[in-house]
Amino acid sequence: MKKILITGFSGFVSQHFVDYLKKNKIEIEILGVDINEPEDDININFEKLDLLDIDELKKTVTKFKPDYILHLASYSSVRFSWENPSLSFKNNMNIFLNLMEVIREVLPSCRVLSVGSSEQYGNLGDNEFVLEEDCSLLPVSPYAVARVAQENLSRVYCDGYGLDIVMTRSFNHIGPKQKNIFVISSFAKQLVEIKNNGKKGAKLVTGDVTVVRDFLDVRDVVDAYYKLLLEGEKGQVYNICSGVGISLKEIIELMCEILGIDVSLETDSRLLRPNENKKIIGSNRKIVEKIGWEQKIPLRKSLEDIINYWSYQ
Amino acid sequence: MKKILITGFSGFVSQHFVDYLKKNKIEIEILGVDINEPEDDININFEKLDLLDIDELKKTVTKFKPDYILHLASYSSVRFSWENPSLSFKNNMNIFLNLMEVIREVLPSCRVLSVGSSEQYGNLGDNEFVLEEDCSLLPVSPYAVARVAQENLSRVYCDGYGLDIVMTRSFNHIGPKQKNIFVISSFAKQLVEIKNNGKKGAKLVTGDVTVVRDFLDVRDVVDAYYKLLLEGEKGQVYNICSGVGISLKEIIELMCEILGIDVSLETDSRLLRPNENKKIIGSNRKIVEKIGWEQKIPLRKSLEDIINYWSYQ
Repeated sequence: MKKILITGFSGFVSQHFVDYLKKNKIEIEILGVDINEPEDDININFEKLDLLDIDELKKTVTKFKPDYILHLASYSSVRFSWENPSLSFKNNMNIFLNLMEVIREVLPSCRVLSVGSSEQYGNLGDNEFVLEEDCSLLPVSPYAVARVAQENLSRVYCDGYGLDIVMTRSFNHIGPKQKNIFVISSFAKQLVEIKNNGKKGAKLVTGDVTVVRDFLDVRDVVDAYYKLLLEGEKGQVYNICSGVGISLKEIIELMCEILGIDVSLETDSRLLRPNENKKIIGSNRKIVEKIGWEQKIPLRKSLEDIINYWSYQ
Repeated sequence: MKKILITGFSGFVSQHFVDYLKKNKIEIEILGVDINEPEDDININFEKLDLLDIDELKKTVTKFKPDYILHLASYSSVRFSWENPSLSFKNNMNIFLNLMEVIREVLPSCRVLSVGSSEQYGNLGDNEFVLEEDCSLLPVSPYAVARVAQENLSRVYCDGYGLDIVMTRSFNHIGPKQKNIFVISSFAKQLVEIKNNGKKGAKLVTGDVTVVRDFLDVRDVVDAYYKLLLEGEKGQVYNICSGVGISLKEIIELMCEILGIDVSLETDSRLLRPNENKKIIGSNRKIVEKIGWEQKIPLRKSLEDIINYWSYQ
């Protein structure tokens, strides 16, 4: 049986990746590692591991000898990266470099999926075009700069040292179980509370809701990750996105419609970021054409499931 | 009187920058910092400082309060970066992040020149075009990835935190006093020895001499640095280059002609790099048109001066 090591195992995406493997009856031996214990007991091999500790990481990789590594671990908060640019950058780079160095030394044949972010593209102004993988990258946050560096290092480790790495630029993903530090989950949770409290004239406090993003259900994202681990071309980068842009304001309106409520919006300037990308919409042509992946869950279905999730918390 | 802090003060470029200030009778108070003592006693304020030590750096910047910082310090060996990718990357990024964080905290008005490299462009194949600043960056060495990250972080610190940074992509610079770990100096030193020893049929051992590079005299480089510190536009990046490509083989032939000798070339495979850029030629249009800089020293004059330098060592 093949073996897969999943970093960032206790996070949102990993849970859905494991669900995906089960649902599709994919037989593969899993070892999850994370700095935090997983919240649910899902009866899968788990090791508490700080990826900043290269010696421990090396022991784990040497012992488990994975065929695949799904590298989900990151310090992924853009907000934290603005508050602590140096620490955010270093942590993200150090965990990635530790992983690369360990693989280079003990398991160079292992296939790695290096997960990146649509934030790498940066601010392209009020462009009307969707982002293809060969666009210039002009990252505008410390977090995004680290993601660009991770992708560039992935290419170097592929071309210069012969490692087997596939890279993604994953656009905003949403779904049930996502923590409410993320914007859509945060809105959904608040709107469910407003609905439950039966408040008339309730207010939703937000940051800038005019920003346009490309949202994809996490269950479609993990489908893409699995397909890329198997079929992705070494050294190539793939957008993972819906190809459709929608503003946060429209998302809120859709959720209000699903819930049958009305709210007014109030902007809190503390929620505005120093330098925000106005619009990020990706093209998924490459992964659709080369890998045969396709989006299966429409946005409205995702929002319904997220609202359901918060309704039963 | 204005004040300038120079990092990497004991290096080759810094020496020429100080010579430039003297020669042009520019009155400015200088503080040099470096992890190594300068080789020559040039009667300028100097502090031995490891930029990886953020507390010491902060003390120095707080006390000196420079108007300008010329950030020359880096772990600039591409070869070292291939041998120690993780360490090379981390050191380069950590000294830069320390500098940024100190300035952000104690001296946000200070103008910084962040020196980058033509290596950032990466391998564009057998292109016939010269590299403009808006080309895509596909760095192929760990060193080059760090340089791209430094430039991206510079833009983030400008746009996101309001710092005053100008960036360069400096192409290969050459000149007298450059150490012979760098290719042109190494060739010049060996050819001078061959000339002095009067060897017939002597051999020069080289790496790949078919690579084409854009060489600029260090004295033209420091002229560009000074002009950019004064006139560069905040948040902008400028190529510093001659605009002309020449192969290492042609350089060797030119030097042999100057010395009046003949040599045969022998390739040492240990001197080949894992993933070498075949051709790097820059466009200097932006700095010429926007800043009024121009190249003053032709290649042949540079090579003569380098040969003279090694002749008297």
